[in-house]
Amino acid sequence: MKNIHLLTPKEMRALIRKGNWDKPTAGLAMGYAQANLVILPQKYAFDFLLFCQRNPKPCPLLEVLEPGKFRPEFLSKDADIRTDIPRYNIYRKGKLERTVRDIRNLWKNDFVTFLLGCSFSFEETLLRSKIPIRHIEEKKNVPMFITNIPCRTAGVFHGPMVVTMRPIPPDKVTRAVQITARYASVHGAPVHIGDPSKIGIKNLQRPDFGDAVTIRKGEIPVFWPCGVTPQAVMMKAKPDFCITHTPGHMFISDVLNEELASY
Amino acid sequence: MKNIHLLTPKEMRALIRKGNWDKPTAGLAMGYAQANLVILPQKYAFDFLLFCQRNPKPCPLLEVLEPGKFRPEFLSKDADIRTDIPRYNIYRKGKLERTVRDIRNLWKNDFVTFLLGCSFSFEETLLRSKIPIRHIEEKKNVPMFITNIPCRTAGVFHGPMVVTMRPIPPDKVTRAVQITARYASVHGAPVHIGDPSKIGIKNLQRPDFGDAVTIRKGEIPVFWPCGVTPQAVMMKAKPDFCITHTPGHMFISDVLNEELASY
Repeated sequence: MKNIHLLTPKEMRALIRKGNWDKPTAGLAMGYAQANLVILPQKYAFDFLLFCQRNPKPCPLLEVLEPGKFRPEFLSKDADIRTDIPRYNIYRKGKLERTVRDIRNLWKNDFVTFLLGCSFSFEETLLRSKIPIRHIEEKKNVPMFITNIPCRTAGVFHGPMVVTMRPIPPDKVTRAVQITARYASVHGAPVHIGDPSKIGIKNLQRPDFGDAVTIRKGEIPVFWPCGVTPQAVMMKAKPDFCITHTPGHMFISDVLNEELASY
Repeated sequence: MKNIHLLTPKEMRALIRKGNWDKPTAGLAMGYAQANLVILPQKYAFDFLLFCQRNPKPCPLLEVLEPGKFRPEFLSKDADIRTDIPRYNIYRKGKLERTVRDIRNLWKNDFVTFLLGCSFSFEETLLRSKIPIRHIEEKKNVPMFITNIPCRTAGVFHGPMVVTMRPIPPDKVTRAVQITARYASVHGAPVHIGDPSKIGIKNLQRPDFGDAVTIRKGEIPVFWPCGVTPQAVMMKAKPDFCITHTPGHMFISDVLNEELASY
């Protein structure tokens, strides 16, 4: 088989669809945007769309499909949302019930699909600027933390912001802010730099999702809003039913990261 | 009375609420963002929110209120959407029925209010960069045109993009693009520069909304997406009922334009 890192988005999605890849997707199909997934019954759709409008940093909408539709139009022309994500989380009344690799048998005609930008999109540009990405270096899932930063409420949806953390050498922090600020539709600039306790994080070695990574002497922990925020929100809002991706296991799109950047 | 141009947003809204100002709002409360208004019954709210998500250039959402709410939270803490806009357009089944100065007697508990960014926000920065704004110079309403550029459809909503036109001296066009690109949440960069016929505009002296302005020899017509687009869409989609602002007669907010700019 070809080196996995050289596969196109279409090839990666085919591999995932056949059940041959169920691991995190960071570093795959470099150059192409990946997306967070939220699927909700139609009765929750207006409230959640409003939640995303009010919380664009953790929940930057890339595409929303009309009720019952499982094929995107903007992010890909040949994808199927029910099969093309490596792992799905099934939430019932706010509880993670199980993790599955295919949701065709769960699909209902009133399901509304939301695809949200993912910070993996700006990692490529950070790497090109010689800013290290520790979880890629260590072949791990990005560390994610539930913070004490409240999201703005919309209808039934409320809860805390989830962030990703990347340890950055002190002389590169400003550049990392500048680079990521260009990518508002994939979470944009950091929400916090420096002291994890200020945003309610007790131990950087105990992430709420993903893996802990090495923080070298002198490195500054930098925190970006994360598309796993809806999952923390589902745990609080407890909708009857909700499907998301499993953190780190993203939808791989055919849209270039550069197409999502501001000038 | 104080010079009208020196009034704060709160003072301008009070004047409007008392029925003492029903003219266009360009050039008023400089420094503060103005907003386009769309009010729809709840049954249309998801489709229209989706329409805005899919068409962020003509329909950049600044705030959406939950059903029945008429007091914004983000754009102002003391405004009333039913009284604080100089003129309202009442549409029934896609037809402009009448124009009124107060909608308290029309208000229903299932109305959902959408407030969209307005290009008046970047005019101030253009002026500060010595880029002339002809309709302000001539004390007119900005000229607006229905184009042949289709919006992306969402549910029942479909139709053409409406644009504003400003004639710009040729040596200032690039700078005008650069400046307005920083303001994505108030329509951002131009959608077209130069030839009006390419976007379906036949006669620049016959705008579909607002007033014609002088185009001096050598000036380039530059076209920005416009928040009157929803009104062209209502004419096509024909919802039972819809209330908008009258073009050019905007909601004046307490949020600074600079707060809406990207870095």
